[in-house]
Amino acid sequence: MDNTKMYKSLGIDLDAHDTLMGALPELFKECFLNKEQDLKGLSYFYSVVADIHGARVKELIEHKNKGPVIGSFCIYVPEEIILAACGQLVGLCAGADFWVPYGEQIVPKNLCPLIKAGIGAKYSRTCPYFQVVDLLIGENTCDGKKKAWEIFSDMVEMYVMDMPNKKSELGLKLWQEEVKNLCNFLEKKFSKSISFDSLLDAIQKVNAKRSALNRLYETRKNSPTPISGIDALLVTQIGFYDDIERYTKMVNALAQECEEKVLSNFKNNGRKRILVTGSPMVVPNWKIHHVIETSGADVVVEENCTGTRYFKDNVSIENASSKGDLLKNISDRYINNINCACFSPNRGREEDILKLCKDYKCDGIVYVSLSFCTTYMVEAERIRKVAKENSIPMMTVESDYSFSDLGQLRTRIEAFIENL
Amino acid sequence: MDNTKMYKSLGIDLDAHDTLMGALPELFKECFLNKEQDLKGLSYFYSVVADIHGARVKELIEHKNKGPVIGSFCIYVPEEIILAACGQLVGLCAGADFWVPYGEQIVPKNLCPLIKAGIGAKYSRTCPYFQVVDLLIGENTCDGKKKAWEIFSDMVEMYVMDMPNKKSELGLKLWQEEVKNLCNFLEKKFSKSISFDSLLDAIQKVNAKRSALNRLYETRKNSPTPISGIDALLVTQIGFYDDIERYTKMVNALAQECEEKVLSNFKNNGRKRILVTGSPMVVPNWKIHHVIETSGADVVVEENCTGTRYFKDNVSIENASSKGDLLKNISDRYINNINCACFSPNRGREEDILKLCKDYKCDGIVYVSLSFCTTYMVEAERIRKVAKENSIPMMTVESDYSFSDLGQLRTRIEAFIENL
Repeated sequence: MDNTKMYKSLGIDLDAHDTLMGALPELFKECFLNKEQDLKGLSYFYSVVADIHGARVKELIEHKNKGPVIGSFCIYVPEEIILAACGQLVGLCAGADFWVPYGEQIVPKNLCPLIKAGIGAKYSRTCPYFQVVDLLIGENTCDGKKKAWEIFSDMVEMYVMDMPNKKSELGLKLWQEEVKNLCNFLEKKFSKSISFDSLLDAIQKVNAKRSALNRLYETRKNSPTPISGIDALLVTQIGFYDDIERYTKMVNALAQECEEKVLSNFKNNGRKRILVTGSPMVVPNWKIHHVIETSGADVVVEENCTGTRYFKDNVSIENASSKGDLLKNISDRYINNINCACFSPNRGREEDILKLCKDYKCDGIVYVSLSFCTTYMVEAERIRKVAKENSIPMMTVESDYSFSDLGQLRTRIEAFIENL
Repeated sequence: MDNTKMYKSLGIDLDAHDTLMGALPELFKECFLNKEQDLKGLSYFYSVVADIHGARVKELIEHKNKGPVIGSFCIYVPEEIILAACGQLVGLCAGADFWVPYGEQIVPKNLCPLIKAGIGAKYSRTCPYFQVVDLLIGENTCDGKKKAWEIFSDMVEMYVMDMPNKKSELGLKLWQEEVKNLCNFLEKKFSKSISFDSLLDAIQKVNAKRSALNRLYETRKNSPTPISGIDALLVTQIGFYDDIERYTKMVNALAQECEEKVLSNFKNNGRKRILVTGSPMVVPNWKIHHVIETSGADVVVEENCTGTRYFKDNVSIENASSKGDLLKNISDRYINNINCACFSPNRGREEDILKLCKDYKCDGIVYVSLSFCTTYMVEAERIRKVAKENSIPMMTVESDYSFSDLGQLRTRIEAFIENL
């Protein structure tokens, strides 16, 4: 079927959707097509963005004959369990300024743009991914999202996983139970039985995706990096909603191309190497990378939920002989290895940042908080101390999805890079 | 000893402290002394404020010979357990604009004034209560506080109680364990054994305080209310740091005077009756009550942490035959009966507000969020719906501790009251 027919069947507001989609090509051109790049493997990912509300939405609609389509906003929602229940997990739309005014009709302006955009995307009926999902799985990470689920629950079917605030013994136990409960809930809700074998298969698929991303990121440790930061960010962003097997194959192909490029005799370009850390950056939020990389430096790694935190560790399948063992390994991987600022204390993140700075030979840190993202804004103080103790220059940026601060951002970022 | 000597011994910054204290008399006069009021029992509470950094601080210093002085920022920290460990619990300074710029040196401006002021009060060394405490007990309610504990832990000894985000079976279990852990921690830390008897005695003391406040608030159900909202708020605020037995006696005396006043032949004054709900209001944050009550209406009840949530339910001592039983009853009272916006969902608060509106015959609701207080700001949307369904007019106010919005607030609040 053509897209218009599909959009109509999904209840999309066609006029508003046209306005939204009208802005994307120019932005994409500015951020991706205007720069030099020589990786053939990127063309797949560029084509996914070019057809962002097309082919993949069709696939998801078709998938609904086989199993549920489930949306989420956070990397704590375990994709393995959704896959094992014959589901498809999609990270939902929340990265464009277009949706913010819609969200502000329901929630206060003093809220992070990701949450306002997420609510606005659903409320405005301009996100086909939102329209296609059978269920939205939320998680109690930050105050904004925790309270947003109550708003979403008036518009879409919701299931919320609770999270502890502390990685204590009790906290881990709470999370283990929440993982088990999710499994039971999905089995019942969609009449799918999740077996040891289906769960093992799902774990292997997600591990393979993570390994491919790790392989790609590994090549960025080289000087110069074979792939620009903004391209690598795009690849990771697409991982949140693409078909997992096709995506894994494409990432591996791109990684191989990058490995070959590193082996060929290309020379150090002398550009400064930046670690970006902080709040997540979801499609089409490419702002900070764009400014940094058009100001003379390379982003070589992202310590955030649309970067290393998404894929850095696999779920163990060693010594697992029952479904319970696998669920336990899943919960361990998520709670132990993802160092989100929603935890207090969150010392693991300090260690992660220092290790990444060393491994990726970073000259400086750009710490990016979305506006009103309390947990990352406050945690910046601690990371600033740690960076200082380790003599790593760091700048903090607080920004939203609008382009009104681009000039000011560029001035500050250029000055930071010059002083490295 | 005289106060200066005492302040020096506590490491107070004397000059800054003088500036802080210089502003209080004028504010107190404007809010309390310039209005008519005829309750003799209030003179005690007025005198406590007049000597806010004097007599009570001396008592606490003396108390340190017998047991610890423990600070907190939240009504989830169970006072019973602190009392049973021979401790004194004090609600810490976080209500004045004076401290905000100090806090903003460490944490971002986009953070609620209560947290910025709390951090600023400690950082500026101008709060004798902060200087006197042996330990600060935090609790993971909102993002701002959760992350603030990491900042505080560099300045003061901290113990943090984790909180679930959901009142699920697992959440309740986590909280029960946290209550038990606090008990064990205090026993060990201060070498005090907490027995069944000492815990029972502490529960009875806190229950008596709550009952006295309930008795006082009960009189506000009358038309006209025998006590102004701002005076009642002050009484409750003082409950957070006064000596519990003296305080309970004074509240009971005041309640009795109010009961007698109601029985005497005083006539309905025709003023509109307002329920105030939202973020906590800590000393000297009297702004909203002052504006409402000088705009022709009476605040007759506060559904917030410095209002009914503080005292509305007692800890059960029925059928408790062991220390474990009492701890269980304590944890039940706190988690089941306090409907803080940190929980999601938080339907209990909707029911509380509707019941209070009915019991206190309220004509309208003023919903007050501190600026950047995400949980209350977002929850306003749901309360707005519920209020509308029940035909109760509601206005929302977002404000901080500065006086710069007083004119605008007065215009809006006057218009709201006129339309009731």
